[in-house]
Amino acid sequence: MPKYVFHYFPIKALGESVRLLLAYGGEGFEDHRIDFEDWPAFKPKTPFGQMPVLEFDGKQYAQSLALARYLGHKYGLAGETLEDNLEIDQNVYLINDLRTKAASANYEKDEAIKEQKYKEFSEGVFPDSLERLNALIVKNNGYVALGKLTWADFMFAGLFDYLSAMMRMPDLGEKYPALQQVKDRVYSIPKVKAYSDAVTA
Amino acid sequence: MPKYVFHYFPIKALGESVRLLLAYGGEGFEDHRIDFEDWPAFKPKTPFGQMPVLEFDGKQYAQSLALARYLGHKYGLAGETLEDNLEIDQNVYLINDLRTKAASANYEKDEAIKEQKYKEFSEGVFPDSLERLNALIVKNNGYVALGKLTWADFMFAGLFDYLSAMMRMPDLGEKYPALQQVKDRVYSIPKVKAYSDAVTA
Repeated sequence: MPKYVFHYFPIKALGESVRLLLAYGGEGFEDHRIDFEDWPAFKPKTPFGQMPVLEFDGKQYAQSLALARYLGHKYGLAGETLEDNLEIDQNVYLINDLRTKAASANYEKDEAIKEQKYKEFSEGVFPDSLERLNALIVKNNGYVALGKLTWADFMFAGLFDYLSAMMRMPDLGEKYPALQQVKDRVYSIPKVKAYSDAVTA
Repeated sequence: MPKYVFHYFPIKALGESVRLLLAYGGEGFEDHRIDFEDWPAFKPKTPFGQMPVLEFDGKQYAQSLALARYLGHKYGLAGETLEDNLEIDQNVYLINDLRTKAASANYEKDEAIKEQKYKEFSEGVFPDSLERLNALIVKNNGYVALGKLTWADFMFAGLFDYLSAMMRMPDLGEKYPALQQVKDRVYSIPKVKAYSDAVTA
């Protein structure tokens, strides 16, 4: 039995960052993908009625960012000082704010409001945040924080496709090459590549 | 000159948790409250064009949750193990998700949509999340996580009034006494009380 069981929908979305970190850690994990039709039955068994959930040592933990930070610290992908970790967190939250904004457009139920949001965001918060993030990555030698590989890179790499889809920007990586660079770097790590190749095979 | 300068609007909102932690730490901080009319001039001087910002040792850091976690770890308000910190983070994000939801109603510009959101949330996500949070606090002996005082309690106590206002629930503490208990506990810590009394005096 593997050390970890990771419960999430059969999509990347909020789960892929955690999967990438679990693959990197190499301790073994069961990638339990729960179909949407099976979710209502599983929901009451989770800590907060949400996924993703990571289960180990007889306990279940929720919240994707909490899980990514935990695994990052466990696998030597955190900073050396509290100030280093503050910088990682700060940059992770910049990305997370963008995700929340993109989600608020993507999951809007009213079609008219949805299009209005996309119009507003695609002229404002999306390019503003992406330019800021791109510059931040350039400043950090092609990484999200600290000028070196940290769990923030995994957080972003795992979120890349979801962000791109939610922002309706299939050309995200072409427009912002530093963002593409972070994704490629993480996915080229042998253990991560092996996981990704196996999933997409 | 104090060790820290904390820049934020003259309101509680996203800044108060950080102020409570700075007060608790007792190293001294300049509580730099920037009026809304002065914000456009200050904005380009901040790391992400946002507040709050904490400045120390010649550097500026953004993002309220990152700052709260940093100070919490610095002042002995974190867990002892990575798993402890995972539990703290998990519960902090449960609260933060509720804040995001409340904000999406509170800051909605279209009056009709706004009222529709309040109707929907006040019958669904607000009571659901609050009951879950109340039960979690009861299970943790009156604290947000780990059954003892952590930075998660400061995070929640600092957010209490903002949450209550954004959810349009002035009776939040009466309806959910465990939530009120966390707030009262943090505000009754002598250094926190001294800060709060001075501000409201």
